[in-house]
Amino acid sequence: MRNLGKLRIDGERLAARLDALAGIGAIEGGGCCRLALTDADKAGRDQVVEWMRELGLFVRIDAIGNIFGVRAGREDGAPVMTGSHIDTVRTGGRYDGNYGVLAGLEVVRVLNEAEVLTRRPLAVAVFTNEEGARFAPDMMGSLVHAGGLSLAEALAVRGIDGALVGDELARIGYVGDMPVGTIRPHAFVELHIEQGPVLDSEGVTLGAVDSLQGISWQELTIEGQSNHAGTTPLRLRRDAGFVAGAVTLFLRELAQRMGGNQLATVGRIELVPNIINVIAARATMTVDLRNTDAAALAEAERRLAAFTEDLARSEKVEIRSRRLARFDPVVFDTGIARRIEQVAGRLGHSIRRMTSGAGHDAQMMARICLAAMIFTPSVGGLSHNVGEFTRAEDLTAGADVLLHTLVELAEE
Amino acid sequence: MRNLGKLRIDGERLAARLDALAGIGAIEGGGCCRLALTDADKAGRDQVVEWMRELGLFVRIDAIGNIFGVRAGREDGAPVMTGSHIDTVRTGGRYDGNYGVLAGLEVVRVLNEAEVLTRRPLAVAVFTNEEGARFAPDMMGSLVHAGGLSLAEALAVRGIDGALVGDELARIGYVGDMPVGTIRPHAFVELHIEQGPVLDSEGVTLGAVDSLQGISWQELTIEGQSNHAGTTPLRLRRDAGFVAGAVTLFLRELAQRMGGNQLATVGRIELVPNIINVIAARATMTVDLRNTDAAALAEAERRLAAFTEDLARSEKVEIRSRRLARFDPVVFDTGIARRIEQVAGRLGHSIRRMTSGAGHDAQMMARICLAAMIFTPSVGGLSHNVGEFTRAEDLTAGADVLLHTLVELAEE
Repeated sequence: MRNLGKLRIDGERLAARLDALAGIGAIEGGGCCRLALTDADKAGRDQVVEWMRELGLFVRIDAIGNIFGVRAGREDGAPVMTGSHIDTVRTGGRYDGNYGVLAGLEVVRVLNEAEVLTRRPLAVAVFTNEEGARFAPDMMGSLVHAGGLSLAEALAVRGIDGALVGDELARIGYVGDMPVGTIRPHAFVELHIEQGPVLDSEGVTLGAVDSLQGISWQELTIEGQSNHAGTTPLRLRRDAGFVAGAVTLFLRELAQRMGGNQLATVGRIELVPNIINVIAARATMTVDLRNTDAAALAEAERRLAAFTEDLARSEKVEIRSRRLARFDPVVFDTGIARRIEQVAGRLGHSIRRMTSGAGHDAQMMARICLAAMIFTPSVGGLSHNVGEFTRAEDLTAGADVLLHTLVELAEE
Repeated sequence: MRNLGKLRIDGERLAARLDALAGIGAIEGGGCCRLALTDADKAGRDQVVEWMRELGLFVRIDAIGNIFGVRAGREDGAPVMTGSHIDTVRTGGRYDGNYGVLAGLEVVRVLNEAEVLTRRPLAVAVFTNEEGARFAPDMMGSLVHAGGLSLAEALAVRGIDGALVGDELARIGYVGDMPVGTIRPHAFVELHIEQGPVLDSEGVTLGAVDSLQGISWQELTIEGQSNHAGTTPLRLRRDAGFVAGAVTLFLRELAQRMGGNQLATVGRIELVPNIINVIAARATMTVDLRNTDAAALAEAERRLAAFTEDLARSEKVEIRSRRLARFDPVVFDTGIARRIEQVAGRLGHSIRRMTSGAGHDAQMMARICLAAMIFTPSVGGLSHNVGEFTRAEDLTAGADVLLHTLVELAEE
């Protein structure tokens, strides 16, 4: 085999594809809205599948809509896989997920042009509904692929707009004929923007991600009693809106008290009837708890439950909790993380070991194969925001490290 | 003039009309949804106007859509007026407002049947948009009638659904040809359910309302920054959702600390983008503050402003406040309140002096004429709720007291 050390990504081609994909579901400010299984998601998928076919990849789609573009190797067997997702949150940026998929395609293009055939096959994956912004849980496609959620359960999930995953998948034409979990890779490497401030604030170009925070998502429904805001004494109120506010403040204070890596976010609050002079009869709110420490994450859940129990009693409301997602912290493969560091060093890019604050498809793939991630900086730490931005040279650096890491793993 | 002391309301006829009106915009549980200037409001208005014409009333409609049914007196001059509103909140009951209007019509019917002509004319008013649930401020029609808000400003108000008062008024055909403020009554007496727990819990049948709480309504808009819930450290967050929660809790604690009659309610909260794993970029929330003491109400506003200023600084968000309504506490006419007590005593109904916790059209009318109110009990204090209920005998008692109070005032 020839010396492949000189191979490099074409950053301009990568940027052009990021631009083109960002044009689908584009929103003001340069961002994207391609919620999973919407028409915009379908249009994005169609574009990526077209690009895969142009690159000669064998496109396979499974029953949950995951897309795999497979490139043959010198030998048959378990492929080395990269990939990510192309669905976005409602006010998403253009890099989150898309970057990992399109860098994977650029790796294939470079290898095609250099006429390099790796020992193991390569595969570029596009996983369904990573964001979970429309359907919970997030990372749905990779979770089903890894056997953590049954296909039947996933298809029966109802979204925030009332639609079913199964119906929407059929509607956009992405119910594939391949059974879920068919392609079991040798290794999985996901390239992703950091979506946090660490690399940018430290001036480091890349992250070798060797672990990932645990995530606990729940939806709280608070049932109080609607009543007139001007005539109901405080002591007689059963105010679901007040309870939602008190829980929101409690969660911030809880995370501050616990310290360490504990995070807590209330991203969604909805009141019924949601009228200025009517005490809210019902509040629905979400709670997002994260920690790299499994025991601490469970402790945060316990403290929240104790708080809501007391509050339900004192305000005479009913508080129900529904679990939307629950993933323990993940430890990635140290061997791959070390290899990513070595490749970056050879290519002259600064790199540090780090943990991921966000959930990623790689954490599901880690259940069934060796896995790790490569991070590139997010300017200002911004993500899930139309202002999400990663510099062109960092995008290229990350894709170069992906290229050589995949090639090395494929020769193993 | 004959002795009119024996005249009585027909409670069954009154109940039948309440039933019929409640059938328009009926919602599950026996309540009503007739938001101001919607198709349902138009249907309710058409029904009331038809009933007015059947009773021989001269129907006049002004430029803000207020409806006046006038019954001639033995002499010309300023009429004695009663009335209320028929618009409801989204989850409204069937008594709030409607009762006052329909009891007014029943008074006319009793006088018609007894062939009684009062010295002064009588008038039954239906004021536009009392609730303010769709268009702020509330009590819009009576406020414009009393000269507290210009017609042009009122017509230009945009509702929560983006519609304009002027457009909607024209659409439902209720732009009348009478200039606003034309009918200046001698006195105004409004009959209304209490919408609070005082009469019901004390077992008293009626209230002679001699004062009314001041109301301060504002909408707060909190501009933060959307960001990833899993990667943004607490200290770097600019979380509009957290701020909305903290303000909600602060207001409850403020009202508790201030004591007295201070009330504070957050009835509406909306987050953008309102997604579980995205820190909210923007929150919109309403604040409803009430107090019978003008100085205390102003103090509550000041303390809220100081709190939001500090919070804006510490969370690095921008908080804008927009005033939606502001009415100082009102003192009604003691002479009319005393007369209501005397009439109730003569008819054998228990009655107490009280203040109104809710805003009412009578407070606007108090700016231009002698005014007071009669309250009937709300079972459990429930209102702005489909479970709103007042017993038939109490409805009849209130209407009887209204009848004789109006007749006495019309002979003055």
